[in-house]
Amino acid sequence: MDKPETALLALRMRDWVAQAGAHIRHHIHDPLQIQTKSSRTDLVTNLDKQTERNLIAAIRSEYPDAQIMGEEGSGDHVTDLRGLVFFVDPIDGTMNFVKQKYNFAIMIGAYVDGTPQVGVILNVMRQELYWGGPQLGVYKNETPITHGSELTLADGLFGINSAMLAYDRYHSHQLFKTCAGMRIIGSAGIEYIQLLEGRQIAYMSHLAPWDVAAGRVMAETLGMSVTRLDGHPLDMLSSGDVLIATAPTADAIRAIALG
Amino acid sequence: MDKPETALLALRMRDWVAQAGAHIRHHIHDPLQIQTKSSRTDLVTNLDKQTERNLIAAIRSEYPDAQIMGEEGSGDHVTDLRGLVFFVDPIDGTMNFVKQKYNFAIMIGAYVDGTPQVGVILNVMRQELYWGGPQLGVYKNETPITHGSELTLADGLFGINSAMLAYDRYHSHQLFKTCAGMRIIGSAGIEYIQLLEGRQIAYMSHLAPWDVAAGRVMAETLGMSVTRLDGHPLDMLSSGDVLIATAPTADAIRAIALG
Repeated sequence: MDKPETALLALRMRDWVAQAGAHIRHHIHDPLQIQTKSSRTDLVTNLDKQTERNLIAAIRSEYPDAQIMGEEGSGDHVTDLRGLVFFVDPIDGTMNFVKQKYNFAIMIGAYVDGTPQVGVILNVMRQELYWGGPQLGVYKNETPITHGSELTLADGLFGINSAMLAYDRYHSHQLFKTCAGMRIIGSAGIEYIQLLEGRQIAYMSHLAPWDVAAGRVMAETLGMSVTRLDGHPLDMLSSGDVLIATAPTADAIRAIALG
Repeated sequence: MDKPETALLALRMRDWVAQAGAHIRHHIHDPLQIQTKSSRTDLVTNLDKQTERNLIAAIRSEYPDAQIMGEEGSGDHVTDLRGLVFFVDPIDGTMNFVKQKYNFAIMIGAYVDGTPQVGVILNVMRQELYWGGPQLGVYKNETPITHGSELTLADGLFGINSAMLAYDRYHSHQLFKTCAGMRIIGSAGIEYIQLLEGRQIAYMSHLAPWDVAAGRVMAETLGMSVTRLDGHPLDMLSSGDVLIATAPTADAIRAIALG
């Protein structure tokens, strides 16, 4: 995809996400229909599903040949990464959406033949839109972001999944003792924003492709490392344990996590 | 202290905190002088110290006979709770202030003979001021807050200190399995705001009097429980492990934590 096409794609993705965010904010106090998915704490609401349907309809109208992987299942059953593939997370951090009415995100990532092109993350309640890609750079609304944090592991805050911290997975207790502090937010999208803003140096969690896709485009554009926690390259077709870390910290974190 | 005196006290406390917040926002990108206190991750900056000195000067000019306990040591050496006592936390969440430039608070609590009168917490970067007390009610800026969350422990988000979660203190792993999810923010003031907003049902941490004082006034006014984690009443002269919880969850949490 050449640069004008990529810029047009980014513009459209920003529009779709901004409209979806406005819709959610408009309905933020409506009664919700809440269902559980894989577990008691894995929630989906009617607004997640409706938002996904709206986003997928918008994508299909402009890119009818693209494959779409959506969190709530109204996209395609994607089994390969050929061509243009969209990863759609209509509400990332549904528990926060339901309980807090804030700290949740809308995310779309666009890849061509498995290569990251454009990522868009909207902090819905704060109306802060992060977007970009390797050909475009990374922006918060209209302001460029030029690099992630330059802190070392010892000086940086570390975002983590609560089960990993509780049960000492990947030597997280040793990471906790080494870093400046651990934080748990409950939304991969908001965690990515912390990384893009330089407020944290890493995020470690169990993530699905739609959790990881949009932020990966921007994090890698800023020179960060996005890998499976076992050190292997990310697989964009399956869920797994993922480490996103700034360039100065990624090796040090993996050395502890895999040590 | 009668109601007009209490209302005047609240008005003054709001002014002091608002002015301190404006000062910090004005200097948010200045170079900081950062020192450690009890540990590598217990930070204090020149701006913490200056803000405390300014707040204490403002308090002394209006209430010269009051005792003042300040986090950074420029107050009095308070050994009893007789008379009017102010608890001052100039920057709560100094690590977040240093690393994130957000998610930190300014807090002042005012007690008379050990009885809570007025609490004020400012989310500095969002300019959201929470204030109130038993005679006044609780407000976010000018909007009344009438009650905390009515969720059960199973349905609510739980704020916790990272070491407690990592090392299973107070059966936190069992609490984790029971609640809807755990969050780690890194500022007692912002945690209190989550409780006052109904976004969380509990917060468990090791806290000093200046961490707990302001929020306690408002949390108790809304019917929440603020106790030592061992179930004993809070001691406002020393640090300790503290549980703040909504009325529908406090007993259930203590039953697990002390079980």
